[in-house]
Amino acid sequence: MSRSHISSDEFRRHGYELVDWVADYMERVGSLPVQARVAPGDIRAMLPPAAPEDPEPFEALVRDLDSVVLPGITHWQSPGWFAYFPANVSAPSVLAELVAAALGAQGMLWSTSPALTEVESHVLDWLVDLLGLPERWKTAVGPGGGVIQSSASDATHLAHVVARELAKERGASSEHAVAYASSQAHSSIEKGARVAAIRHLRPIDVDENYALRPRALDEAILRDLEQGLAPAIVTSTVGTTGTCAVDPVGEVAAIAERHGLWHHVDAAYAGSAFICPELRVEQDGIARVDSFVFNAHKWMFTNFDCSVFWVADRAPLNRAMSVLPPYLRNAASESGEVIDYRDWQLPLGRRFRALKLWWVLRSYGASGIRDLIREHVRLARWLGERVDEHPSLARVAPVAFGLVCFRHVDGDDATDALAEQINRDGSVYVIPSTVDELRFIRVAVGATPTTAADVERLWSIVSRTL
Amino acid sequence: MSRSHISSDEFRRHGYELVDWVADYMERVGSLPVQARVAPGDIRAMLPPAAPEDPEPFEALVRDLDSVVLPGITHWQSPGWFAYFPANVSAPSVLAELVAAALGAQGMLWSTSPALTEVESHVLDWLVDLLGLPERWKTAVGPGGGVIQSSASDATHLAHVVARELAKERGASSEHAVAYASSQAHSSIEKGARVAAIRHLRPIDVDENYALRPRALDEAILRDLEQGLAPAIVTSTVGTTGTCAVDPVGEVAAIAERHGLWHHVDAAYAGSAFICPELRVEQDGIARVDSFVFNAHKWMFTNFDCSVFWVADRAPLNRAMSVLPPYLRNAASESGEVIDYRDWQLPLGRRFRALKLWWVLRSYGASGIRDLIREHVRLARWLGERVDEHPSLARVAPVAFGLVCFRHVDGDDATDALAEQINRDGSVYVIPSTVDELRFIRVAVGATPTTAADVERLWSIVSRTL
Repeated sequence: MSRSHISSDEFRRHGYELVDWVADYMERVGSLPVQARVAPGDIRAMLPPAAPEDPEPFEALVRDLDSVVLPGITHWQSPGWFAYFPANVSAPSVLAELVAAALGAQGMLWSTSPALTEVESHVLDWLVDLLGLPERWKTAVGPGGGVIQSSASDATHLAHVVARELAKERGASSEHAVAYASSQAHSSIEKGARVAAIRHLRPIDVDENYALRPRALDEAILRDLEQGLAPAIVTSTVGTTGTCAVDPVGEVAAIAERHGLWHHVDAAYAGSAFICPELRVEQDGIARVDSFVFNAHKWMFTNFDCSVFWVADRAPLNRAMSVLPPYLRNAASESGEVIDYRDWQLPLGRRFRALKLWWVLRSYGASGIRDLIREHVRLARWLGERVDEHPSLARVAPVAFGLVCFRHVDGDDATDALAEQINRDGSVYVIPSTVDELRFIRVAVGATPTTAADVERLWSIVSRTL
Repeated sequence: MSRSHISSDEFRRHGYELVDWVADYMERVGSLPVQARVAPGDIRAMLPPAAPEDPEPFEALVRDLDSVVLPGITHWQSPGWFAYFPANVSAPSVLAELVAAALGAQGMLWSTSPALTEVESHVLDWLVDLLGLPERWKTAVGPGGGVIQSSASDATHLAHVVARELAKERGASSEHAVAYASSQAHSSIEKGARVAAIRHLRPIDVDENYALRPRALDEAILRDLEQGLAPAIVTSTVGTTGTCAVDPVGEVAAIAERHGLWHHVDAAYAGSAFICPELRVEQDGIARVDSFVFNAHKWMFTNFDCSVFWVADRAPLNRAMSVLPPYLRNAASESGEVIDYRDWQLPLGRRFRALKLWWVLRSYGASGIRDLIREHVRLARWLGERVDEHPSLARVAPVAFGLVCFRHVDGDDATDALAEQINRDGSVYVIPSTVDELRFIRVAVGATPTTAADVERLWSIVSRTL
């Protein structure tokens, strides 16, 4: 490290120290209150008003991890994390991130670091097999292919942009394009459509399990066609954020095909579970869709960001994303033999995110990931049974994947009070939400370190509170 | 690390080992050929056809770093890196990335980890002072504020989306919105506009220094107004990718203000140099713009991704980006006292990218960063003098910041041949490009470890080849 103010020996010393800090953090995170207990402005108040003019010793940085940073962290890696969905890390993933950061290579073009592109293409092809997805989604087979995006929001936005461009090719302006998704779809679908300048978003009615009603979709499309609008895209969700509902992808596919809509699948959370054959749902339907996203950074133990996006045909995506200035021209791209991932995403630059996914798959092995996910699902079902047995609680949806949704039978206020009590304990964290104007509590079992003991502790807090 | 297949002791051991691997890499990167020398498919051919069913030992992963990954890396961190612009890492930045990955916290809402939001807001306020930018761009002052995006492409896309929405509020459809930028602007402006469904992009003529001609811009806007179109946004570039030209931001500001356009500044590369007062350009003009982006991951020694985006008024950005589903409602957000950065970006999730920027600023100190940038600029000027003295070479643009652009006086073929010869050496890497239909060679001096010896070596290769 010539020119660095930190010598190579110092780098090693600080590096070992931080590896220890991380190992210690992972060991003690379960003993910290899951939710940060600071008030707005508390963290900023600890920071000096201006950047230092002169170098600070590295020790000061590390000290502030404990005194400034940790009090302001809500611990997504706690074994007591049952909030939102998980955003997991794991040992191989964290260490791969260190290496990727140090290589500091850019994967915008194949030629700017061939390993970044080829490892990514290859590992995503592995995942096609592991998740039971269609063979033609492999880059090595085609015409489809996979690419890592920052988040499911980015992937879903891209799907909307591509659908808008296809509608445009058929003569429809973006002002007339229409996007569809169930009323339970994630906010990223509304946001993706809006950002993509699709002005019409139709929230489609759901059935008693909060899954999209195909007939309502078909009717909405017909209504829009009658009004001269241009139905462009429908998103099916596999595992909604609210209750983990699964839309009938096959029935939606038939409707999308009939009317020529792009069909996108948001399996952000549940997609990881497809690595277990018995947890695959709507597989025949998924084989017919145009694009699919799942977040390896949710339930596949690969730290954020690592959102895997497949398209059944790469051509419309590449058409929408390719702009070639003179400084990016190169022989490899012109040969047509390589993938340039800049044509598969909005940004130009891209990190070596495939490294951590590759390391996670190899370090756990497919069997190791299956074991963890199966255990989380088993624990969720166990918790669901406890809920069902308790006279003061009522499930609001079937236990699905790792998610358990329930409410207090006395109503919304009792439910909110229960959530508050549970979170006050500090060793666990759950999120209340609303569905059908009813308040309920979401318990998402799936943090990397969560074991039976943690779910039992959660249940003892719940039952003690009732 | 309960539930991990890797024990805490093993994590420490592998962590130390990888810290050593990284330190070794940083020491030896200068001795590796800068450009990867593999053919399409070479890397994939080394990978097994399927993911492993059972866990692999960690040693196998580390071994493949050397045997599979490194041959496929084009070494952006080499002291001989003179290609594109730099995408720098540094010791504090790499170590911060390790910690941020391990914390695995999400900063979508203030409440999901207050430290992520508050450190980010605070450090970007520091940077406002360090770069000599307007006080009201500070989140602590307002109405503006800063936010870290993945890349300048993302920031520029957002600027176009916000401008499109403002035009919409004035009654113009996205089909009628028009975006402007110089013919030398980065491809991300064309891409950002296209992805944002802005169909009209006007490349504006440049002067002899490749800077936008304000009169040509004004004429283009008037022409579009006459045709009933809706001029929505103009982007000024401070440091174009081709030749590092600087658009006359003040004159563009006057035109943008007169016609009510959003005025965005792309200072992706050159913005870092503003930390040196003598390298600030167009400061008065920049004080009048609506948004500004620079990449700390280019020339501020903070590894990708870390693109800093300021808006002079946060309200239109938040209006365009805010979608609030029930599972994200929380007391802190409703108090109005906190920043929820999900309303400042397209994705929902976000990493703790501010940690590395904070650590870089503290570890180098402002003076340390100034020293490095000034040295790079000094070396670029030295190289420019060598070029000027040589009868076979001609500069195609003034030396600007760290960029030197020159061609062979014998024409395009001789220039391309020279670039090829330079790169064949393997110890340095330059990129040829085209401006005004003339081929030229770009030498960007600015990789973290680049010293006088490296620039002298580059020059000796050039002069030996001529």
